Amino acid sequence: MDIEIVLNKNIDDSYKIYLGDLDPLRFETKVAIVTNKTIAPIHLAALRSKISAPEISEIIIDDGEEYKNLQTIEKILDRLCDLRLDRRSVLIAFGGGVIGDMTGFCAAIYQRGISFVQIPTTLLAMVDASVGGKTGVNNSYGKNLIGAFYQPLSVHIDPAWLKTLPKREFLSGIAEIIKMAATLDKGFFEWLEKVDLNDDKTLKEAIVRSIRLKARIVMQDEKESGARAALNYGHTFAHAIEKESGYGVILHGESVAMGMVMANRLALSLGLIKDEEALRIKQAIKKFGLNPYYKTPNPELFYESFFLDKKTKNNNITFVLPRNIGDYIFVSDAPKKLVLEAIEKGGE
Amino acid sequence: MDIEIVLNKNIDDSYKIYLGDLDPLRFETKVAIVTNKTIAPIHLAALRSKISAPEISEIIIDDGEEYKNLQTIEKILDRLCDLRLDRRSVLIAFGGGVIGDMTGFCAAIYQRGISFVQIPTTLLAMVDASVGGKTGVNNSYGKNLIGAFYQPLSVHIDPAWLKTLPKREFLSGIAEIIKMAATLDKGFFEWLEKVDLNDDKTLKEAIVRSIRLKARIVMQDEKESGARAALNYGHTFAHAIEKESGYGVILHGESVAMGMVMANRLALSLGLIKDEEALRIKQAIKKFGLNPYYKTPNPELFYESFFLDKKTKNNNITFVLPRNIGDYIFVSDAPKKLVLEAIEKGGE
Repeated sequence: MDIEIVLNKNIDDSYKIYLGDLDPLRFETKVAIVTNKTIAPIHLAALRSKISAPEISEIIIDDGEEYKNLQTIEKILDRLCDLRLDRRSVLIAFGGGVIGDMTGFCAAIYQRGISFVQIPTTLLAMVDASVGGKTGVNNSYGKNLIGAFYQPLSVHIDPAWLKTLPKREFLSGIAEIIKMAATLDKGFFEWLEKVDLNDDKTLKEAIVRSIRLKARIVMQDEKESGARAALNYGHTFAHAIEKESGYGVILHGESVAMGMVMANRLALSLGLIKDEEALRIKQAIKKFGLNPYYKTPNPELFYESFFLDKKTKNNNITFVLPRNIGDYIFVSDAPKKLVLEAIEKGGE
Repeated sequence: MDIEIVLNKNIDDSYKIYLGDLDPLRFETKVAIVTNKTIAPIHLAALRSKISAPEISEIIIDDGEEYKNLQTIEKILDRLCDLRLDRRSVLIAFGGGVIGDMTGFCAAIYQRGISFVQIPTTLLAMVDASVGGKTGVNNSYGKNLIGAFYQPLSVHIDPAWLKTLPKREFLSGIAEIIKMAATLDKGFFEWLEKVDLNDDKTLKEAIVRSIRLKARIVMQDEKESGARAALNYGHTFAHAIEKESGYGVILHGESVAMGMVMANRLALSLGLIKDEEALRIKQAIKKFGLNPYYKTPNPELFYESFFLDKKTKNNNITFVLPRNIGDYIFVSDAPKKLVLEAIEKGGE
């Protein structure tokens, strides 16, 4: 470990994010590692060699967004009961965003709350999902409609896990990095336009900058009443894409890339950004190999699904749109016609 | 409303408990009333006449502890999605402890947390369940193993609802009142030994005294790390009784009455109370018409189920036992032999 970021909302409720080689972790209580069938055969032995505890169990679930639901939560909770984990026990989330969200949620509701530690293995989880305490699952109505705000004991980010990450998963993380840069930090965005994230040192810098950005926002607004919603740039569209195409078919970050381009089209119609700025964001998305195009079979249904999104209040959709590059604005009164147009264009 | 108790842990996280005739409640957002099939036909119309909101929906679930599980939670959450409740919407828990626990839990995890109001209709919920922010459900491993600490916006206690409460349910609430008096307030216990709780004014006084006791404890220790566990007198045994006999067969308060007598047997063996004090508690239980006797078919299995209880830490059971009358003590090293003896005696 060589970098340490303290997320300190208040004295009672702070935790540390460690970045670098994973240091050994020691626990005085029972520990259960929650991971998936993809990660377990490749990395679980390596993780276990770093952990010491009186009792270490493994809970291995199916891999994929399509398993991020209450049924899987119930299975995990049953296992925690089987293992007789008590209120002092600790869960370790070892995997991507899905594992982190579900493990965190189980920790939040098992015996009314036990501790958990995040060890993200995907780029998306490192830069986004593991910071900020959002936990939860999807249901048939939409993404993350069930969950809790629940902070981990600590987060340990070791980019070494990324060596075996499939290309699509890697790009999915890059989409979230672009998202944060485009709406929060122009200098970071311009740096991203130039660099090669396949270089280890550059990637590590991108991770650190992303986490610092996210930490800054989360500390201002833990429960997403204001500023934190800025992190949802592209996400209203992305959630509809994921739901429509079936969870797991298009990865979360892939749909965020598509969603940002749809959001930009709306921002253009509303005069919030210039053509060339929208183009730069789209080019950054393409540069890293992400696909900015998505064609919905049913724009009206796509639009309808917005009304179930958590960002919708009293039947009013609030979009997070870029205002130039490096800034954002909330728009709650976008005319349906313009929104539908952005959906139909699908990145064109 | 004529009595107001403020539960004020800190400035950000306080709520009021109102006691007396229910005042009209006005909301600016969508509201969903969660209640059960027993309450709805008798009281729902009366409640609705007191509530004004842009949109009021009703979610009516089956009545009974046996429905307090994740399956019911999922059904309620689906309905909240169907109704398009958003983050500003408010749930109203209208019923007994089961309704309160489940509605509170749904509020805690719907869209990562929305507001809820408690309107208890049973004596048990008035004096115990609706104060303190414990929410959750049972699973096949035990009671309340899944849940969250989540505080309501406000609690409105109107004893008028009790007019239609079945006798067994009423007695179930009295068991919790005796529990608090016996371990926390000797004067209150001695008062209970003398009074008739079928008298409205006396009952109201008992409710107020119980709530004040519970509020005092909860304010000291919201998350049950210390003093709050005192409220679990009789509950380790009671949870095992409820689980063994099948949820809903013996009411929660009925099993607490039985559990207290088992706990007293253990306290006697450990020299914590005198024979005559144990007898006084048992007589108070009997005086109100509660049954102090329970015979388990399998004492070993009964004992084993303690290890899944939330009060168990690192395989160590902590019992809350009376120390004389009006005081309590935590005992973590009770010999298994004495515990088994208390179980086997079953109130004799």
